[in-house]
Parts: sequence; C-alpha cells; structure tokens
Amino acid sequence: MGATVPTKRKAFINADLGEGYGNFKCGPDEELIPMIDHANVACGFHAGDPLKMQESIRVCKQYNIKVGAHPGLPDILGFGRREMKLDPEEHTANVIYQVGALKGFLDAEGVELNHVKPHGILYGMMCRDIEVCRAVMAGIAKFKRAGGEPMKVFGLAGTFQEQVAKELGLEFVAEFYGDVKYRADGTLVIDRKKKPWDVEDVKRHVRQQIEDSAVTAVTGEVVALPTGSYPISVCCHSDSPGCVEIVTAVRQVVDEYNKTNGFL
Amino acid sequence: MGATVPTKRKAFINADLGEGYGNFKCGPDEELIPMIDHANVACGFHAGDPLKMQESIRVCKQYNIKVGAHPGLPDILGFGRREMKLDPEEHTANVIYQVGALKGFLDAEGVELNHVKPHGILYGMMCRDIEVCRAVMAGIAKFKRAGGEPMKVFGLAGTFQEQVAKELGLEFVAEFYGDVKYRADGTLVIDRKKKPWDVEDVKRHVRQQIEDSAVTAVTGEVVALPTGSYPISVCCHSDSPGCVEIVTAVRQVVDEYNKTNGFL
Amino acid sequence: MGATVPTKRKAFINADLGEGYGNFKCGPDEELIPMIDHANVACGFHAGDPLKMQESIRVCKQYNIKVGAHPGLPDILGFGRREMKLDPEEHTANVIYQVGALKGFLDAEGVELNHVKPHGILYGMMCRDIEVCRAVMAGIAKFKRAGGEPMKVFGLAGTFQEQVAKELGLEFVAEFYGDVKYRADGTLVIDRKKKPWDVEDVKRHVRQQIEDSAVTAVTGEVVALPTGSYPISVCCHSDSPGCVEIVTAVRQVVDEYNKTNGFL
Amino acid sequence: MGATVPTKRKAFINADLGEGYGNFKCGPDEELIPMIDHANVACGFHAGDPLKMQESIRVCKQYNIKVGAHPGLPDILGFGRREMKLDPEEHTANVIYQVGALKGFLDAEGVELNHVKPHGILYGMMCRDIEVCRAVMAGIAKFKRAGGEPMKVFGLAGTFQEQVAKELGLEFVAEFYGDVKYRADGTLVIDRKKKPWDVEDVKRHVRQQIEDSAVTAVTGEVVALPTGSYPISVCCHSDSPGCVEIVTAVRQVVDEYNKTNGFL
Repeated sequence: MGATVPTKRKAFINADLGEGYGNFKCGPDEELIPMIDHANVACGFHAGDPLKMQESIRVCKQYNIKVGAHPGLPDILGFGRREMKLDPEEHTANVIYQVGALKGFLDAEGVELNHVKPHGILYGMMCRDIEVCRAVMAGIAKFKRAGGEPMKVFGLAGTFQEQVAKELGLEFVAEFYGDVKYRADGTLVIDRKKKPWDVEDVKRHVRQQIEDSAVTAVTGEVVALPTGSYPISVCCHSDSPGCVEIVTAVRQVVDEYNKTNGFL
Repeated sequence: MGATVPTKRKAFINADLGEGYGNFKCGPDEELIPMIDHANVACGFHAGDPLKMQESIRVCKQYNIKVGAHPGLPDILGFGRREMKLDPEEHTANVIYQVGALKGFLDAEGVELNHVKPHGILYGMMCRDIEVCRAVMAGIAKFKRAGGEPMKVFGLAGTFQEQVAKELGLEFVAEFYGDVKYRADGTLVIDRKKKPWDVEDVKRHVRQQIEDSAVTAVTGEVVALPTGSYPISVCCHSDSPGCVEIVTAVRQVVDEYNKTNGFL
Repeated sequence: MGATVPTKRKAFINADLGEGYGNFKCGPDEELIPMIDHANVACGFHAGDPLKMQESIRVCKQYNIKVGAHPGLPDILGFGRREMKLDPEEHTANVIYQVGALKGFLDAEGVELNHVKPHGILYGMMCRDIEVCRAVMAGIAKFKRAGGEPMKVFGLAGTFQEQVAKELGLEFVAEFYGDVKYRADGTLVIDRKKKPWDVEDVKRHVRQQIEDSAVTAVTGEVVALPTGSYPISVCCHSDSPGCVEIVTAVRQVVDEYNKTNGFL
Repeated sequence: MGATVPTKRKAFINADLGEGYGNFKCGPDEELIPMIDHANVACGFHAGDPLKMQESIRVCKQYNIKVGAHPGLPDILGFGRREMKLDPEEHTANVIYQVGALKGFLDAEGVELNHVKPHGILYGMMCRDIEVCRAVMAGIAKFKRAGGEPMKVFGLAGTFQEQVAKELGLEFVAEFYGDVKYRADGTLVIDRKKKPWDVEDVKRHVRQQIEDSAVTAVTGEVVALPTGSYPISVCCHSDSPGCVEIVTAVRQVVDEYNKTNGFL
C-alpha cells in the first residue's frame, strides 16, 4: 500500500519518561522535558515510583509541558515489555489504579491530566487484540479532562486503538514513532531494550511519517499510516540510547514541518 | 492515670478490609461489611490489589458503608507490619500514590472518599514519631472531602496523630480498638499476626473504652484515652481470627451504648 | 482414542504446598503432608517465602516426605497462573535461581532434593511449547540428585515435558491429577482459582487414571494418558477448596490400588 | 584514639556488583571486574536478577575473579538502603535463600562460593545490633567453602561482625572502604545514593587505611580500625559516580602497597 496525501496539521512530540525506579535512573528526563510537548509519566507498574512521579510532574509543570499517564503491565523486572495474559477486568482495574495514582499527584500539584498513553507491550497488545484494547480503554474512559471533556488517548491509527477510542467516545491522538521501527502491517517492533539509532535515520524516519503519513517498514515496504485528520504527535523514548540527540533531531524536523506549513 | 468522664457521643465501627492479594484471601469482607459503619480499604502497598479495591468499594456501596483509604508501608510480604525507615518525602508520596489510586476507583463508582486511616506499623510509627506523622499527614492533606471539606483522619487521641491532624486542619476521628491491646502509655501492641480473642473479653474491652474513654493496659493499669469530644469509632481487623464473632460482639456493645445514650 | 492397558506399578501422591506468602496462608500443609509421598515446595516466585520454604522442609523432614522444588513464573499477584512471555534464557535462569534457593534450605536441613515440578501456567506452557519446555528443563538439568544421579522431573506424559526430559537425560515421573480436569488433547484445564470437587468424583477420576492410564475429558471423550512404564504420581493442590478431603480420598484410592496390585 | 602499627599483609580489592535489575543498569561491571580481586554479587533482594547473577558469575569466571554472595534486605525500590525491622529468623532465612540462589548459578558454572558479604543497611545494622548480626551470620554459617572449610565473611573489624564471625567459627576478612566515609566510632556513613569523590581523596583515604589501619572520620578525628591480623580487602561500589576512576585509583594504591611490602 502506498502513501496517501495526509491532512496538514501541527505536529507535536511526546516522550515516555519518569521511568526510573528508586536508585535506578532511566533517562535524562530533565534534558528531554524542555524539548517535548507532552510527557507520558510512568505510574509505578512497569517503572516509576511515587517520588519519581511527583518529581516528573513538577519538572513538567515548571516547563509548562502537558502531562499524561503512562500505565503499563505489572512487571518492573520486565519493564512492561514482557507479554502477560490478564483477565480483561484486571486490565481495566490496573489502568484505573495507575491513572488514579498519577492523578493524586497531579491534583496535589494543580496540573491537569491531559491524556493517557499505555506503555510497552500493553500498547502493542491493544493494537492487535480487541479484548485487551477494550479492557484498557474502559479504564481510561473512567477519567475525564478538565471541564468534563472526554479523555485523550495517544495511539496507533488504523489499529484497534483507534477503533475502540471511537467506540468509547475518547479523543484520539495519532502517534508516529521517532525511535521505533514498523512492521509491514503498520505495527511496531517492540524490543526489550532499545537499540541505538543514527540521528540522520531518525530525521528521515520522522520526516517521512509526518509529511507522508507513511513509513518504510523493516521489510522495505512503504506502509501508509492512516492518521486521517487526527492530531499527530511523534513519540520518543527516554530509555533509547542517545535519546537527547534523538529528541533534538525530532524537535528540529517537527519545527521545520510546523514552520513550513504555517503552524509555528 | 485514671479514667476521665468522657463526653457522650455516638460510637461507630470501622474495619480494615480489602486486604487480600490476588489468589490470597484475607478476611470475610462480605460478612463484615454489613455490620460496620466505615471501611478502610487497603491500597496495594501492604495488601490489596486493583481488582480487590474495586470489589471492596462496590460491596461497600451496595450496603451504603462509607469508604476510606488504608495506605500502608510498601511491603506485601510483611503485610505492612515491619517497620521501615523511609525519608519523609517518601512517606508523603506513598500516601498520595495510594489514596490517589483508591480515589480512581471511588470516582469511577461515584462513591465519596470519606477518610484516610494509615495501616499497621505505619500507624504506630505516626503515634510516636512526629516526623513520620507529619510526612504521612502531609500526603493525606492533599485530598479533600466532597465540597472541599478537610479530609477526615482516623487515629489515636493523645498521640502525634491528634496533634498533627490539628496542625494541618484535618478532621480527627478518635479510634478505640476492639481486637488490639494497649500498652500503659496508651499506644497499641501491634503483632505481625493477630491473636485470638475471647468474645466476652472483646465486649469488656470495648465497653470500657467507649463508656470510660479508658482501657486496661497489658500491664494491668487503667489508662485514660483522651478522646475529648472527637467523634469516636471502634476499629476491628478483618484478619483477626474469629473476626466475624468479634465484629458481631462489638456491634452489639456499640448499639447498646448508642441506644442507652439516645444516639440510635 | 480409547484407554490402553497400562503397566502396573506402585502409585504415589504428590502435592504442591508451601504456597502461602508472609501473612497470607494458603493450604492446610500440616494436615496434608502426612498423607502424601512427595511435596512440591513453592520457591518464592509465584508463592512461598524464605520462612515458609524452611518450615515446609522441616515438616516434610519430620514425616519423612520427599521434597522437590516447585518453581513458577515471577508473579505473586497472579499466583503463577497468568501466562508471561519470557526469553528462554530467563526461564532457565529463573529455574536455577528458585531451585538453588530451595536447595540452600535443603542442604541446611540435611534433606535431599528429590525432584523438580514446575508450577501452574509454566507447567502448562511447557506441555505445549517446546522452546519454553527446553528452557525450563535446561535449568532443572543443572541440578543432580544425591550420588550425581540425574534430577527427577514430574510432568505430563505424551507432552513436550516427557520428550524434553528424555532429550536431557532427566528421570521422568508421569503425573495424574486428582483435582484438575483434562481437555480432549490430554492437557490440563488450569484455572486461576481452584474449583470445588465432589469427593466421589475425585475417587472416580483418580481410579480411572491409575487403573486405565486414561481420563474422561471435560468434553466427554475418554483420553489415553500415555504414561508407559514411568513411575506414576497423583498430584493434588493445597489451594483446592476441600483439599484435606480430596487428599484423603486420593490416598484411599491409591492405597487400595497399591494393595490390590501387591505394591503395599 | 590514635592509629596503631598494623600487621603488614597483602591487600585486596572487592566490589559490590551485579546490581542492575532487568532493564535497569547499575554499574560498569565489565570494566570493574578485571581490576578487582573479589566480586560481591547481588542476589535479587535489593538488586540483581537471575540473568544478571548468571552473567556476573560468567564474567568473573572469565577473569578468574573470586565470587561471593551479596545478600540484602528485600527492598528493590530502596536498593537495600532503607532500614527494615525483621524477625531474626527472617534474616536467617533471607540469607539462606539468597546465597542458595547464587550457589545454584555458581554450581552450574563450576565456580566456588568464596565468601559472603551482606549489603547496604543490613551490613550497617549488623555492625551495631548483635541480634541482627547473629541472625544474618547464622544463615551464612549454613554454607561451607570447597572442602568443607568454614565460609569467609567480609566485614568491619571492631564491630559485632567480627565478634559474631568468631563465635560461629567463620573466617573473617577485614574490610576498608575506598568510597565511603567513616564516623568517629569507626562505623560507615551509608547514603541512599553514593556521592562523588575526588580521586586524590580516594587515594589518601585508602592509603591511610591500608598503611595505618586507621581513618580520618567525617568529624576530623583519626580513628583506629582494629583489623589485627585479618586478611584485608578494600571495598568499592559499582554504583558510585566515577566508580571506574575510583577503582583504578584504589588498584594503584593497593598495588603500590603490595609491591612496597613484597606481596606482589
């Protein structure tokens, strides 16, 4: 399937962060936060702990970065990247627990819950298993944005994530990935440990996605990413090797695109 | 110190529950809930898990029982009954995390967060260590009751719990204990595993507390419990052996007291 | 497929136990141990903790019951009954860790490590996924019995468990199940929570298995269990409701069989 | 108290390592191992996981570095640096569990268990609380070195560690610290997070200890470290900032000392 001519709209950048655990540091959050638009803050199940969550929110608040919840599977050792078969009601309850916990800190700091973005293999499972997707989204749908607006969900267009978000009346934000490769079916190749990227490859990868709504898969095909007219946001990971360089590069590509198209 | 003549006011019963963990069952919550006034629901750190929290709230809602959060130390194996030295900011963040998580479920079910009661050894540490007490209470104070009212805290009168609740403008509810013994200084003897009680002893123990605001300590002295004019509530544990009989007995004593004094 | 005429040999009983966790009790181990031949002691990943492991070994030693390791997936909340996708080398290392830990206590008590029996869904995954099976068995094969003899493995005949045990030169013990039902393909129906059994059904279920090396599946077919001439052992679970009655019944059936056939 | 003239004997270097956890990396173990004599490998309670333990042992084996167990308190989030009050029998069982688990990997790799060195705050608690010390050492004493020799314990001379090691007939190795400061009573200042050191300060600090068996405390006094004629080993931490430079410096000081005194 070839690329389609996508709707032009402003592009944003989001990053998964707050993913340390106690003495274990993960990414250089303080360097990344000023360069992004939306932070997905880990909620303690795959990474993150109460102090880290609080600190992440405070740094985001300082730079006026919007904060979302980043719930994952209950597996610190596997960093939420090992598939686990849970009952649907467990998925729902796990999401309510994690987002509720983050909201405790957000309310305490006077910061709005902007969105929810599931983490790691749970995100991947939602793309391909509608039962898991509905269970997770049912948990997300229990939360509202300021003013009672439906919660925003970041996800992959063309998968069950988009379909179920629609079903439940959630606001959908279509993601592109700055530091993750795609399969020919448009789904992501999720590694247990992130691999290094050449910065020029990152730029090409992101440029192709935001300009063409398409991506070259690991098997060589150009795959359409059916983002339609959804708001778009490019995701980067704070645990990728060289993540500061990656996010710097993505910021540059996104700013160029926004400027060229009159969104900046 | 002898017993004082206490203010007469209606007595209530609260119980710690929702303290199973996955396949591990703890107490007979379904039998206890209809007999109590306030439920303290475990929040996942010392016991409880997302599904159990949700289920506990649903059963309480069904019986119209008020629900509070029951945060504990992060120690499932020790059931929150092994002392841990945490930094004050860790205590504060742990409380915000746990109460926030419970509030996620409460909001989803449309049930109000009525109060917070810390669990186990954390409760004991608060009674005797003002730094720990201030740290925990600082977390509790981030939450409000419906209508923006200050949060209610259940605790032991005459200890730092009462003092710090006052400092922070929290509403204080003075607890008595149906199934826990007292030391001569008015603090509780917290065991890792609850020991069995004779039901008649429970009745005498509770009657003495609610009628005299005093208790006979393990060393034989009668100790005043300076509950002043605070609302009073008798605490029972869902993991005590024979807890259904204990709560039944406490309910009987409390109902008699309330009836005799015109509160029922 | 109909039942075959099985080789007659002495039948044994094994039980999974030591499956409490801190304050959480699981089964009535003290009542079960005197009735069984082999104990599979949980090793801390799906249940069990250091004190419980030590205590289980001591009770088994007192009754002269042989002790094996019962390693599971790293998931206390799910009791090792939620499928998790681990790398093969993780499975191998997890088994070495758990069996090594148990061996620490066995050596300290002067008790031999008699066998290894994987727990819950890991056991089920080994039956149907040869990669998982080889990974787990590779960990088991690192341990030897007294005198350098190959380790004994308890498992399901006719599955990858039997095949891989042979490949690696491990001694195989074919299991029957007293309190678990079978599918038509001879594999087990593993529930997250054990369901109650009628004791007469248990007797029929066990009698059919040890006398005919066959079982009636949940779908009604009589399925052969190709136990060949392997030693046989009937497994019971300490977390089944009514487990004392179940094990008592299984003991009776097994003793009758052994007596009738001259093995007692 | 002034410095005494210490017995001259060869000095060694040990380091705590294998202290990552799943995706979380801790120190640059591969760079440190070739520079040290003894590795203390984390056993999964405060840090470390089955795969990391196996990998650490393999790298040590490759460089012919002796391997010891490094058991800690059960607290990944606190990295074993938050004090916890456990029952003595829990301490004993926790040590048997952890050392047994490590021994599983050592046996599988054909590497000898050389010693045991408790981690973090547990080490500190042993120095000042004889009950904790006896409980931990009782667990260590269950293990033997090759040939049935008593286990070696690394610890702080002049504290309960030395006293209890003697009581139980364990072989004692007196430690100095390359990257930790001392109080005037000869005990260590254990921080939750290691602070940076100037390399020249490290050299002075180590030189003073191995040459004078004394150290300048944080309060300025020179404190004797009563290492008597025990074998001595300088400990460094793989999670100290700049640990490669620190260990390089310590190696240099130790080699100079050993050369000057004819031990190299």
